[in-house]
Amino acid sequence: MVRMKCVISYDGSGFAGYQIQPAKRTVQSEIESALKVLHKGEAVKVTASGRTDAGVHARGQVIHFDTSLPIPETKWVQVLNSIFPEDIAAIQVEAVDDAFHARFSATGKEYRYRLYTTPHRDPLKRFYAYHFPYSLNIEAMEEAARYLTGTHDFTSFCSAKTEVKDKVRTIRKIAIVQEGEEIVFQLVGNGFLYNMVRIIVGTLLECGTGKRSPEEIPEILEAKDRSKAGKTVPPEGLYLWNVFYDN
Amino acid sequence: MVRMKCVISYDGSGFAGYQIQPAKRTVQSEIESALKVLHKGEAVKVTASGRTDAGVHARGQVIHFDTSLPIPETKWVQVLNSIFPEDIAAIQVEAVDDAFHARFSATGKEYRYRLYTTPHRDPLKRFYAYHFPYSLNIEAMEEAARYLTGTHDFTSFCSAKTEVKDKVRTIRKIAIVQEGEEIVFQLVGNGFLYNMVRIIVGTLLECGTGKRSPEEIPEILEAKDRSKAGKTVPPEGLYLWNVFYDN
Repeated sequence: MVRMKCVISYDGSGFAGYQIQPAKRTVQSEIESALKVLHKGEAVKVTASGRTDAGVHARGQVIHFDTSLPIPETKWVQVLNSIFPEDIAAIQVEAVDDAFHARFSATGKEYRYRLYTTPHRDPLKRFYAYHFPYSLNIEAMEEAARYLTGTHDFTSFCSAKTEVKDKVRTIRKIAIVQEGEEIVFQLVGNGFLYNMVRIIVGTLLECGTGKRSPEEIPEILEAKDRSKAGKTVPPEGLYLWNVFYDN
Repeated sequence: MVRMKCVISYDGSGFAGYQIQPAKRTVQSEIESALKVLHKGEAVKVTASGRTDAGVHARGQVIHFDTSLPIPETKWVQVLNSIFPEDIAAIQVEAVDDAFHARFSATGKEYRYRLYTTPHRDPLKRFYAYHFPYSLNIEAMEEAARYLTGTHDFTSFCSAKTEVKDKVRTIRKIAIVQEGEEIVFQLVGNGFLYNMVRIIVGTLLECGTGKRSPEEIPEILEAKDRSKAGKTVPPEGLYLWNVFYDN
């Protein structure tokens, strides 16, 4: 058996999220079905760096699986793209050491959140960016972002349903990039809790419209109370952009 | 009755093209159905600047229709966006003189064709850009484009099914813009024949890969024979970008 590490991209619009759920179309179930056919009916378990919610996209999700098929390493991208559905693609595949684990070996992740601010909605972006037709003060959002950068307990910035106990995470970078009528939030950290990126962006937007002041951020962190932070922005703007591993 | 000029945008992926066809979902039928409801059951005829094919998008299609509804001019965008389906949006609406005609008053159009050249397909672009994973010589394509710019008989560059007799058109501009892994062709002209943009781009790509030399373009134009030009590229990369009118 050889362990394969695989960088995949998907359009989240047609999936009920990454993780397998009964009677729903998910990214994991589509990949496992495709690999089962490739392995002549033998089930292949696929492990990802983490889940993504319904409607959330991935440009650089990472998965691993073990295989005994004698496919040369350089042919795997092509083989996987021939068996994956149109809304999932393999971008890079390599054979890795058995110690590699898509989730536990990850040292960090980058998410991006994309929105556009034109007054009218854009049919061509409806599944790919959040329509937020308000004027935004970028400096205020950047100031708020500086308070969030670093190591904090992010209890206030994750879903109250989060089951993980340790809610301390380190955000290495939050960049806010304006590209014409679009604004892209880039967040890099050692890990993100359930809904954390979407709640952070929702809170930054409230600072950007003036509904909140950036100085409130330390109090919100301190409160360790989800209800103190801003709204969860919708999934269509969110992209799992990169997963980082040592070397 | 007041004539309304309306700039609309749509995602062509879910439509069998712009024009009404029996038992198919088309842009025109969706707009006419929505307007009929708005006009309390009264049929409203909608006229566009021209058709677009199945899968082709519009950022700036123009339509007109006549209405007796007492809706203030500034409210129309909002009203239309509340009755249009999610894959069609009104961007700008204004009351115009009765002499205005979306098709006959048009003085020119801009189309854009978008492709990407990464080796692997991108699920997030599958409906919005053509996947062309080959290396392209931009200078050769620009040289070919210069031969096509100006006033020519474009018989070789339109579908053999074209019913229009006069196939002389003027292309004012062909720009080829590289944006990272994407290449966007921008074509501006006084009018485009059936499939003309897609055949021009297909022919330019054959010059870009070296399959043809740019110097062949004058002969192809001269031949007035569709079979002499390149392949018709697929619809998903094509956008009706702008329709121009005097003043």
